Amino acid sequence: MATLCRPVVAVPEYVLTQRETLDLARRLHAGHPQLPLALRLIENTGVLKRHLVLPIEEILRHPGFETRNRTYEAEAKRRVPQVVQEALNHAELTTRDIDLIVYVSCTGFMMPSLTAWLINTMGFPSGTRQLPIAQLGCAAGGSAINRAHDFCTAYPGANVLLVACEFCSLSYQPTDLGVGSLLSNGLFGDAVAAAVVRGNGGTGVRLESNGSHLVPDTEDWIAYSVRSTGFHFLLDKRVPGTMEPLAPVLADLAARHGWDASDLDFYIVHAGGPRILDDLCRYLGVAPDAFRFSRATLTEYGNVASVVVLDALSRFFDAGGTAEQGKGLIAGFGPGITAEIALGRWSTTGTRITPAIGRQRSDAQAVLDAAH
Amino acid sequence: MATLCRPVVAVPEYVLTQRETLDLARRLHAGHPQLPLALRLIENTGVLKRHLVLPIEEILRHPGFETRNRTYEAEAKRRVPQVVQEALNHAELTTRDIDLIVYVSCTGFMMPSLTAWLINTMGFPSGTRQLPIAQLGCAAGGSAINRAHDFCTAYPGANVLLVACEFCSLSYQPTDLGVGSLLSNGLFGDAVAAAVVRGNGGTGVRLESNGSHLVPDTEDWIAYSVRSTGFHFLLDKRVPGTMEPLAPVLADLAARHGWDASDLDFYIVHAGGPRILDDLCRYLGVAPDAFRFSRATLTEYGNVASVVVLDALSRFFDAGGTAEQGKGLIAGFGPGITAEIALGRWSTTGTRITPAIGRQRSDAQAVLDAAH
Repeated sequence: MATLCRPVVAVPEYVLTQRETLDLARRLHAGHPQLPLALRLIENTGVLKRHLVLPIEEILRHPGFETRNRTYEAEAKRRVPQVVQEALNHAELTTRDIDLIVYVSCTGFMMPSLTAWLINTMGFPSGTRQLPIAQLGCAAGGSAINRAHDFCTAYPGANVLLVACEFCSLSYQPTDLGVGSLLSNGLFGDAVAAAVVRGNGGTGVRLESNGSHLVPDTEDWIAYSVRSTGFHFLLDKRVPGTMEPLAPVLADLAARHGWDASDLDFYIVHAGGPRILDDLCRYLGVAPDAFRFSRATLTEYGNVASVVVLDALSRFFDAGGTAEQGKGLIAGFGPGITAEIALGRWSTTGTRITPAIGRQRSDAQAVLDAAH
Repeated sequence: MATLCRPVVAVPEYVLTQRETLDLARRLHAGHPQLPLALRLIENTGVLKRHLVLPIEEILRHPGFETRNRTYEAEAKRRVPQVVQEALNHAELTTRDIDLIVYVSCTGFMMPSLTAWLINTMGFPSGTRQLPIAQLGCAAGGSAINRAHDFCTAYPGANVLLVACEFCSLSYQPTDLGVGSLLSNGLFGDAVAAAVVRGNGGTGVRLESNGSHLVPDTEDWIAYSVRSTGFHFLLDKRVPGTMEPLAPVLADLAARHGWDASDLDFYIVHAGGPRILDDLCRYLGVAPDAFRFSRATLTEYGNVASVVVLDALSRFFDAGGTAEQGKGLIAGFGPGITAEIALGRWSTTGTRITPAIGRQRSDAQAVLDAAH
C-alpha cells in the first residue's frame, strides 16, 4: 500500500501583501476601464499575502524569457534540495531508497529537467526513474500523487519522491492587460514542495484509488500562450464555475470506491480561488470548514499552482491528521480543464519496513555505478 | 501482460536530402572555419534524407518563437489524429478503450498538452489519464513505453496510447553556429508516431521489464537553452561516446532479467547518430545487422527524437517480427543523459480480450459524461 508521507513546503523570502498588490494595481493600471472590477476580484481572492523569489520591483521589470528561465533554474536549484531532504527525513528514507522522481512545474522550462540535477547532486541512484511533467499546471500536484500511487501499485515496495516547483511570479507579463491577467497578478504565488510516497510503511495518507477527468471542450479556459516573452497565462472568466461539472465526478469516483464524498474525514483540494472552494463545498454538501487547509494555503501563499495540494496536505499533517483510517479526498485542478483526484485513508500504523525492491535496485545500481 | 502493439509513423511531405543539406551548409556557412568538419560530420551521419513540416526556405527564416510554436500546434493537430487512429486499429481497440495517453514531445510547448485536444476531438473518455512529457527529449520514446508498461502492471487490463510528436526543424536556430549545431542541422528530422500498449491480448512486444539510467554528471551534454527565440539545442561532442557507460547498464538490466544482452533476437535502440549504433553493437558484442531497424530510421528520416524507437519498431513489425517468444531490447537515449530501457518478447499469440478494467471505466465514464 502506497502512503503519501508528510510534505515539506518552502516559500521564498520576498513578501507581497494584498494591500501592496492592490496599490500596485492602482498605480500600474490607473485609467484601465476595468480597474475597479480587477481590484474587487483581487480583494475577493482572500489572498492576504504571497511570497516571491525576487523583489517585486524586479518582477515588474520583465528581463526577457531567457533571463527569467535562468532565474527559474537558479532558484529551483537553490530551494528544492532542502524540501527534498526534509521530505525524505519525514518518510524515514534516504535518496538511495527512491525509485522514481516525479517533478512537476509549469513556470519554467528545463531540458534535461531538474530531476537529472537532483539525481547527480543529491545522490539518488543512477537508476532512479525520472518523470518530469510541465504541462498539467495546477492539476500536476494531484497528478504527481496519482502517478506515484500507480507506480507503487505496479512495484509494491517502491518509493517515489514528488517535487513541485512553482515560481508563478516569473510568468508575470506586464503587457497582459485583460481582467483575467490583472486578477492572476493578484492571485498566484511562488513555492516549492516535496513529499515521498512510500510503498511500505510510513505515516500519512494511504492511497487507495485515483482518477482523472477532463471537462469537455474547455481547453482554452486555462492555457499558456507561448511567446518570445515567455509563457502568457490565459484565465477564462468561466473557470471559477467549473466545480459544477467536477463535483459529480469527485462524488462518482468516491461512490465507485464505496465512499460518500459528502461525508469524508478530510478534503485537500486545489485552492485555485475562493469560488472553487465555495462551490465545491456547496456541490459536495460539506461544511466550509472542511476545506480549511486549502483556504489557509490560499490566504497565506496565494495560488501556488501544483504546490497547493502539497501545502494544504502539510497543514493537515500539522493539525495532526484525523482519526485513524479516516477517509479523505485529494484533488488537483488545472488546464484541460483537468482534475486529478485521489482517495485515501489517514494511517499512522505503518511500520517502517526497509523497502525490498528499492534496496535491491539500489545495491545493483551501486555495483553499476562503481563499474563506470 | 502488457503488449506493445504495432506503431504507426507519419513523416511530413517536405523532403530534404543529404546533398541539399550539405549544399545549404556550404552556402550558409561559407567561410566558417569548421565548415569542413561540419560537412564531414553530416556526411558521416548516414542520414540520406529528412522530412520537414515546412519547406526548408521557411524553416531557414526564423519567424519567432510564438509563430514557431503555433506552427507546432497546428501541425500536431493536423498530423497526430491519423497515426493515433491507425495505431488503435492495429491494436483492435477504439478510443473508448484507452485509459491513459502518454504524449511525448520536446519540440514545441503547449499547456494544456495535446492530450486534452485529442480527448476532446477523438472521443477518448473524459476519464482518460493524461501524461504529457516534454523534458526527456529523445529518451522519451523509451520513457513512454516504460511508463505505459508500469501503468498496465498497476492496472492489468488497462490500455495505454503512446503518442510521439517531434518537429525538430522548428527548433532550427540560424544564429547557432557551433559545430554541434551545424551537425544537428543535418541530423534531425520531423515525424509523428503512435502505438498502443494493450493490457490484455494484442500482437507485438510483450513487455517484461524496464529500467532507467542517468549517466552521472552529463546534464549539459544534451540540453536546451531556453531563449526568446525558442529552444536552442546544445549537443556536446562527448555525446557519441556515451555508449561506453550505457552498454553495461543495458547488459546488467538484461542479466538481472536472466537474459544475455549480446544474444537477443531483436534490438530497437534510439538512432541518435551512427556512432551510437556502432558503439552499442561493439560494446554489446552483437552484429551490426542487429540494429538494422534503427539504422533504417536514421538513414531515411534522420534522428526524429522520441519517434525513433517507435519508427524502428514499426520497421521490425514490417519485417514480420521474429520467432515467437523471441527476446528483445528497446532503448531510448536522451538528455540527462538518460537511457530508458525495456525488455520484452515477440508475441503473436495474444488473443483479443475485451479489457475488463478499461471497459468498466469507460462505461462508468459514459454515465458521467451523460450527466453533464
